[in-house]
Amino acid sequence: MSNWYVETFQELLVAIDTSIRNFINQHEHQAPIFWHQIYEHFDFTYPDATQNPNPLTAGKRIRPVLMTTVAQSICGTYEHVMPSAVALELIHNFTLIHDDIMDESDTRRGRTTIWKNYGIAQAIDSGDGLFALGILSTLMLDSAGNSPEKSLVASRDLLRACLDTVEGQALDISFEDRLDITPDEYQHMIGLKTGRLLEVAVRIGAYLSTDDEAIISNYVTFGKYLGLAFQMWDDYLGIWGDPEVIGKSATGDIEQKKKSYPITYAFTHADEVQKKRLHEIYSQTTLSEADVAEVRAVLDAVDARAKTQTFVEEYYKTAMDALDAVGLDNQHVSNLRELAQFIIQRTY
Amino acid sequence: MSNWYVETFQELLVAIDTSIRNFINQHEHQAPIFWHQIYEHFDFTYPDATQNPNPLTAGKRIRPVLMTTVAQSICGTYEHVMPSAVALELIHNFTLIHDDIMDESDTRRGRTTIWKNYGIAQAIDSGDGLFALGILSTLMLDSAGNSPEKSLVASRDLLRACLDTVEGQALDISFEDRLDITPDEYQHMIGLKTGRLLEVAVRIGAYLSTDDEAIISNYVTFGKYLGLAFQMWDDYLGIWGDPEVIGKSATGDIEQKKKSYPITYAFTHADEVQKKRLHEIYSQTTLSEADVAEVRAVLDAVDARAKTQTFVEEYYKTAMDALDAVGLDNQHVSNLRELAQFIIQRTY
Repeated sequence: MSNWYVETFQELLVAIDTSIRNFINQHEHQAPIFWHQIYEHFDFTYPDATQNPNPLTAGKRIRPVLMTTVAQSICGTYEHVMPSAVALELIHNFTLIHDDIMDESDTRRGRTTIWKNYGIAQAIDSGDGLFALGILSTLMLDSAGNSPEKSLVASRDLLRACLDTVEGQALDISFEDRLDITPDEYQHMIGLKTGRLLEVAVRIGAYLSTDDEAIISNYVTFGKYLGLAFQMWDDYLGIWGDPEVIGKSATGDIEQKKKSYPITYAFTHADEVQKKRLHEIYSQTTLSEADVAEVRAVLDAVDARAKTQTFVEEYYKTAMDALDAVGLDNQHVSNLRELAQFIIQRTY
Repeated sequence: MSNWYVETFQELLVAIDTSIRNFINQHEHQAPIFWHQIYEHFDFTYPDATQNPNPLTAGKRIRPVLMTTVAQSICGTYEHVMPSAVALELIHNFTLIHDDIMDESDTRRGRTTIWKNYGIAQAIDSGDGLFALGILSTLMLDSAGNSPEKSLVASRDLLRACLDTVEGQALDISFEDRLDITPDEYQHMIGLKTGRLLEVAVRIGAYLSTDDEAIISNYVTFGKYLGLAFQMWDDYLGIWGDPEVIGKSATGDIEQKKKSYPITYAFTHADEVQKKRLHEIYSQTTLSEADVAEVRAVLDAVDARAKTQTFVEEYYKTAMDALDAVGLDNQHVSNLRELAQFIIQRTY
């Protein structure tokens, strides 16, 4: 994680991790085996988690950082949204625990995944519990000074985003065995799977900080297009990123047969000969170096790189225009602007 | 399922299934593969679920029936608790979908389990989505005439019960490899795993129907001990039930090496020679007929049957005393009384 990010949001990052720790710590540990998994996943020391994890190796906390910064930009404080910010981070992490089972991933953030250490049954269960904890946190919004009415609306909003995320994941799994995913289908899936929780972070941050519909609505647009730009840039880096800078193989997404946007674009826009080859290549279990080179050649032929870049730029511009339209000007808005730039230029 | 149950609660059973159907139907189906699994699990016809499932083959809906009947007994109506009643049934079913993966169960209610039909990844995901749907339902309590304050409190109560259930499940999984579970440990685990959602059904039904603390508190005691009696009776039937009546082998729990209450009691109260034999028997992968007979002999020797029966009767009596202490007298209270009797004499 970049130093710029950690330095700019240091106060928030400490406040968020402290709130997560305190929230987890306050529950009676009736089944220690359950709490061990939660603490291990967050890299907290068990059983009292007196220290926050190292911000350079922990998760980015991008969703709670977005939510709290949006709140600060509107009303100068963030404490009133913290129960939802904590909820969002817990819920994001519950999806990671379950995704690691589904993808059979052995490591995450350089550490062994929960299912590898505790087995599939315990990991399914601990993910369920982390989901419950997350919702319990957002249901405490009224204790942080929000009206019961707004607490309910914000919690419903969060849960709808969770349902969208689950539906996106269901589509993503079902795409694994298909070679005919269109770019539109892909965009729909990824918008649900990864976009909704980013959008809702911004929306709840704004909704709990003002009743001004125009501000909320412009922030929602900002959040939505920021999420789209973020995802499209991730897809770009997975194929054309500098391997030394992003820390993984530049062709990793091709090797892993990931059906990211550029690949679905190639499958749809290639000529018949190229399409036939793509189908042959992607029907194999593993891809050779020559296969990867051939896929790259098709991507070049259909100009997938420029197309992907154009989308990133358009999404980024729409997000920035929406942020301008919010009509606020303070350090927190500047931070959001820089954060957006950081996200689509990120090298970690 | 008995005719008495279906006849007595017919109106509620129809209202509950109609509410579940309507709630599920009202959501946009963004990922049909996800909704297919939900509809299939509930035996609803996809995609419009115009018919309720057959009450004789569907789940018992015991939790929503308890919640709505408690509400009726206090204020004559049940519509105001329906969003939580639906939530509870959806959440109970999400735990079933995940439990079937953990236990590698092939069938449930005579139908193929979701993970067998759709794979582990989709089934984990559809369970997550059903959990989200359940919470979304309870968060609609304010639309059913409850104050936002009470809606939040009831929803928090439900989520805490979910967390307890998850912790109970974590303990249960961790017990699989142990032969030294004490009866107390077992009671603690099963109270969390299956008791909390029954308790909370009664508590929310009362809490949303009155502000009278004494009524709520007595109903909570009723719910708690009804749940304990229910579980203890289930353990009794698993070993001493009439196989022709309960529809499964009378020694099923022994054959499956299930560490139910009578077994943990035997492990703790047997003499040293018997204990050694129990450990030898339970260390095997499968049990022979002779093993089962030997376990039954130890159960007889320590008088586990009478001990288990005594617990059922004590719990049942405590539940009935609490119901008397509620101090209400109407058809719905009579139904609850008969339901409690039905539960601990049930033969299905």
